[in-house]
Amino acid sequence: MIRAAIVGATGYTASELIEILLRHPDVTVTQVTSRQEDRPAISDVHPRLRGRLDLKLEPLDVDSVRKNADVLFSCLPHGASAEIVSTVLDGKIRAIDFSADYRLQNLATYEKWYATKHPDPNRMGKAPYGLGEFFADQIVDAEVTANPGCYPTSAILALAPLLKADLIAPDDIIIDSKSGVSGAGKKLAPAFLYNEVNENIAAYAVGEHRHTPEIAELLSTISGKSVSVIFTPHLAPMTRGILTTAYSKPTTEASAGVLLDALRDHYAGHPFVRISPDLPATKHVAHTNFCDITVRRVEDRIVVISAIDNLIKGASGAAVQNMNLMFGFPETTALI
Amino acid sequence: MIRAAIVGATGYTASELIEILLRHPDVTVTQVTSRQEDRPAISDVHPRLRGRLDLKLEPLDVDSVRKNADVLFSCLPHGASAEIVSTVLDGKIRAIDFSADYRLQNLATYEKWYATKHPDPNRMGKAPYGLGEFFADQIVDAEVTANPGCYPTSAILALAPLLKADLIAPDDIIIDSKSGVSGAGKKLAPAFLYNEVNENIAAYAVGEHRHTPEIAELLSTISGKSVSVIFTPHLAPMTRGILTTAYSKPTTEASAGVLLDALRDHYAGHPFVRISPDLPATKHVAHTNFCDITVRRVEDRIVVISAIDNLIKGASGAAVQNMNLMFGFPETTALI
Amino acid sequence: MIRAAIVGATGYTASELIEILLRHPDVTVTQVTSRQEDRPAISDVHPRLRGRLDLKLEPLDVDSVRKNADVLFSCLPHGASAEIVSTVLDGKIRAIDFSADYRLQNLATYEKWYATKHPDPNRMGKAPYGLGEFFADQIVDAEVTANPGCYPTSAILALAPLLKADLIAPDDIIIDSKSGVSGAGKKLAPAFLYNEVNENIAAYAVGEHRHTPEIAELLSTISGKSVSVIFTPHLAPMTRGILTTAYSKPTTEASAGVLLDALRDHYAGHPFVRISPDLPATKHVAHTNFCDITVRRVEDRIVVISAIDNLIKGASGAAVQNMNLMFGFPETTALI
Amino acid sequence: MIRAAIVGATGYTASELIEILLRHPDVTVTQVTSRQEDRPAISDVHPRLRGRLDLKLEPLDVDSVRKNADVLFSCLPHGASAEIVSTVLDGKIRAIDFSADYRLQNLATYEKWYATKHPDPNRMGKAPYGLGEFFADQIVDAEVTANPGCYPTSAILALAPLLKADLIAPDDIIIDSKSGVSGAGKKLAPAFLYNEVNENIAAYAVGEHRHTPEIAELLSTISGKSVSVIFTPHLAPMTRGILTTAYSKPTTEASAGVLLDALRDHYAGHPFVRISPDLPATKHVAHTNFCDITVRRVEDRIVVISAIDNLIKGASGAAVQNMNLMFGFPETTALI
Repeated sequence: MIRAAIVGATGYTASELIEILLRHPDVTVTQVTSRQEDRPAISDVHPRLRGRLDLKLEPLDVDSVRKNADVLFSCLPHGASAEIVSTVLDGKIRAIDFSADYRLQNLATYEKWYATKHPDPNRMGKAPYGLGEFFADQIVDAEVTANPGCYPTSAILALAPLLKADLIAPDDIIIDSKSGVSGAGKKLAPAFLYNEVNENIAAYAVGEHRHTPEIAELLSTISGKSVSVIFTPHLAPMTRGILTTAYSKPTTEASAGVLLDALRDHYAGHPFVRISPDLPATKHVAHTNFCDITVRRVEDRIVVISAIDNLIKGASGAAVQNMNLMFGFPETTALI
Repeated sequence: MIRAAIVGATGYTASELIEILLRHPDVTVTQVTSRQEDRPAISDVHPRLRGRLDLKLEPLDVDSVRKNADVLFSCLPHGASAEIVSTVLDGKIRAIDFSADYRLQNLATYEKWYATKHPDPNRMGKAPYGLGEFFADQIVDAEVTANPGCYPTSAILALAPLLKADLIAPDDIIIDSKSGVSGAGKKLAPAFLYNEVNENIAAYAVGEHRHTPEIAELLSTISGKSVSVIFTPHLAPMTRGILTTAYSKPTTEASAGVLLDALRDHYAGHPFVRISPDLPATKHVAHTNFCDITVRRVEDRIVVISAIDNLIKGASGAAVQNMNLMFGFPETTALI
Repeated sequence: MIRAAIVGATGYTASELIEILLRHPDVTVTQVTSRQEDRPAISDVHPRLRGRLDLKLEPLDVDSVRKNADVLFSCLPHGASAEIVSTVLDGKIRAIDFSADYRLQNLATYEKWYATKHPDPNRMGKAPYGLGEFFADQIVDAEVTANPGCYPTSAILALAPLLKADLIAPDDIIIDSKSGVSGAGKKLAPAFLYNEVNENIAAYAVGEHRHTPEIAELLSTISGKSVSVIFTPHLAPMTRGILTTAYSKPTTEASAGVLLDALRDHYAGHPFVRISPDLPATKHVAHTNFCDITVRRVEDRIVVISAIDNLIKGASGAAVQNMNLMFGFPETTALI
Repeated sequence: MIRAAIVGATGYTASELIEILLRHPDVTVTQVTSRQEDRPAISDVHPRLRGRLDLKLEPLDVDSVRKNADVLFSCLPHGASAEIVSTVLDGKIRAIDFSADYRLQNLATYEKWYATKHPDPNRMGKAPYGLGEFFADQIVDAEVTANPGCYPTSAILALAPLLKADLIAPDDIIIDSKSGVSGAGKKLAPAFLYNEVNENIAAYAVGEHRHTPEIAELLSTISGKSVSVIFTPHLAPMTRGILTTAYSKPTTEASAGVLLDALRDHYAGHPFVRISPDLPATKHVAHTNFCDITVRRVEDRIVVISAIDNLIKGASGAAVQNMNLMFGFPETTALI
């Protein structure tokens, strides 16, 4: 039985994380912390948890975390997260960081896109990118795992095997993603009010979304090629789910069947990725850790489409998958 | 051609009001004001209005309003609204107040439920309640018309004729209402975030909603009886619409057919109320000024059900209906 | 490890049931049947199940079911269900029936409200009503358990303890329920198209819903009083969830606190019912087997409000809870 | 005052059309027809119309239509529509066809994509394409106007001026569109049930949607270039609205500002197209005849984004705009 502490426990990803951990036979949640002054029980903040986890929220105390936890899940925003994680790590406790702080290898890219100094630059490039389908070997031994971004998860799972297998061109990739609103967290902004979101779809952050360099860097790392992407996120009127439609140029005459097989080959032994000739839909993966993917040839393009639940495979499910790898539990425990 | 000024023009009801007024052949919107420091064009706040009304928001200036407007629509919250309305009125300009300030006749009831001093107590009881189906005679000559609350509109239209005709008992009425979220306006509170509202239904303000005394007082005034009600509002996952299901005790053996006829008789000549044996649905009245009503006998109860669009018949449509009455235009202009 | 067969496996409740059973450590799903001619894999009908349960749908074969299953879940409609259940039962296999066929004790009531002959009248009254919070003792030994209706679950859990404790009057109860659309199953009717449901709320089957006698009979049985109810269901624009707002007359001066305690006392030891002074919301129980309940005094009424997920506590979760009781597993296995 | 007959009046586009025509000062709806045997009043089919248009649905009678109408709106599906339109036309009555039958110039393209013989091939290429922003001159005199498809409207308005002005390459265009479900009409298919659509987003008809040749042909006609497109439609969980995100290659160094000006220049004098540097959203154009467009440069691509209401600018609003042009009314009558 390992003990888990959750830092920044008042948001949606923490709520999902706790629900998964409560089903995990080998984990106990021992601490939940919040930076807010007012600290009720976690189940007052997330009424879904009533009677299931009624721990009181605490201020973060480094000694207490080290004493009471084997694994730290940090659900803090970037900047704040690496600061806390780097402070808590003591050679024994291990961490899974939901923020972007350890995802990129390149410090300059981080500081440009996130417009902040990195609080723990020495660990950048040492934390594996927490996509078990590609980096399980490194995650197993990691002190810190960088939990992937939601959009990058949907895009990388769809495109990386085809890039690696030289089936699509690395320099002409358009990624058009549609996300539910929980991706924005509990942020109190007019744009996220029900009346603004309901019956509405719109693009946002066109050409400027911070997941763009994450997608490009990871696709490059995995494929060994210099990959560039155009990435356009959209907000769809739903709570959860990301559908990514990616357009690329073929480098061969390979048919859709061959492309599907390339994906199937890559994901053999990876139970959370399901390849099918059928078109994916976010509803088919909602509340699960699955990523459904298909690929089609349309005229002179290859269209790859993937669906995930942004809160599960795009956040808290992936975090537990990483924890399972790091602590030697079966990868699917509490997730299927 | 009359000139309209809108005070508090950044909210949803103002946006709907402007769209209706833009279709009105006899009205020009000449001023839109906001208490916010930052004052862009009204069409920047409400992008729906781009190219249709690009007036710049102004701070409220009493002299300017008096000089530029024949009618003032106040979309301010209670307290603030009567303060402004009472300051602007000068014997020439006329006003329609969206707030609760002039709806109640009883000052003590107002001050108890709204927990504030009334800024213009002398005008209470002199402003007619702006439900044209009952108070058209007074509205025609009003200096200020008190635009009704959204829930009260749905409840009073459903119940008042039956109470007046002695068909239901005045002392055993339960009103269970379901509203879309636009009723809360643009209020930035966690409860109104998309993720909290979507796929959710809940009661709120049980036994404490401020529309309770409004419903009871108006039903009493119209019927000449002492009416008491239990009122429970619910938030439904939709932007607009109120469905009210009201349970009362019959005082006669009258069949559903007789009850329907009583409603039809009362609303003859009132084009915005549609009586039908079919069950109403908010979708049938969305974006219209209609109120659909039916009535059924169920065991020892009479169930009356009504549907309105809370932003139109429950707010901005009713305001234009009142303006039409006050200025001698056909009641339905710009509304059908 | 027990073996489960699911009859009528193409609907929403079967899909939810399978997802729960897949998490159950002591159950294997061995058979899924469908009356449709075209029988693909169950995961073609429910793409969520891909890679998790890919059994081929079969026609119902009594011998095969008896040989391959210890428990039969019947997700067939009323009439059809009892016909199959009564045919399959052989003294060894046990059944949980999702239909209304075994819920009522009174044959005449059944035949009046369901307008059909009962195919297995001798078993009526012998199958316990599958609400573990009241009938666990009988369920433990049952050959057939009658899985409760969704609306009745929400209403009975809210009202029965207060009736039993003589805290509310049995003859003046109004039940106003709001349900998500999955309650209608996958029925292909215009009323259930997205465009008709979205942004819409309406009452239906006013005074005529078949759950009315089920609620009244069970409340009477549990309380030992003759209980009559007015029941009005509404369709809300959401997939899952039922919120029930029940209005009743107090028989004592008991405060809300006392009423809450009466509920807490009754549900002590019943982990799926959560009593709180806070107002319930369907979102707090979505995808769970919980029922959240509160009670308030409003003027001369007692208002009890409950929330469930109609597909889980109102159907498939309750079925697994019943199975757990029948087969001696901990009541919460696979459900928390 | 002109008289309008509506053929195929039971669908969503007919309902929207009637609501617009009821606001038109110069039009009376004189006939509504349906192929269904059961013909109640149009307001029984569309309860929104109660008390506003209670005409009885009639079977189509050619003589009656000719006698009672000056303009025929055909809301029938392709194939059926041209058959009726060609039968009714007599040199006096004029028609607006909502189907695809007269949109394409090329018969072979039509017969390939629609897999049917064209019932009126001689009129193909003679009916102008009903996009007033490009073909007003021809529409003014048309006997039949081919009302555009919803996706093509959103794509052509976004791209045509840039193609015409040689600002983007004609052979590398990707169109990713997201539509509300009303685009599917009232079709009774499982895919359009609320439970399937809600909280779901998915692509469909990838590489196979019939609007693909319509977009390519019209862009080619307008620009005088051979334009090819990849078009991927998606179903979003909302009733109305289309957002189109189009990716193309620049042919010049023109900045976003220059591109915006090119769009503004083209649409000067066309009140329904609004060009802005801000990102469009379907909510800003819902229930209006507007198309909002912006354009951005992102890396080596030009991204053009447009938003329309598929039922208004994408169908019934465009039809009335066409009627206004054909009959000499101001283009915006009943539409602003």
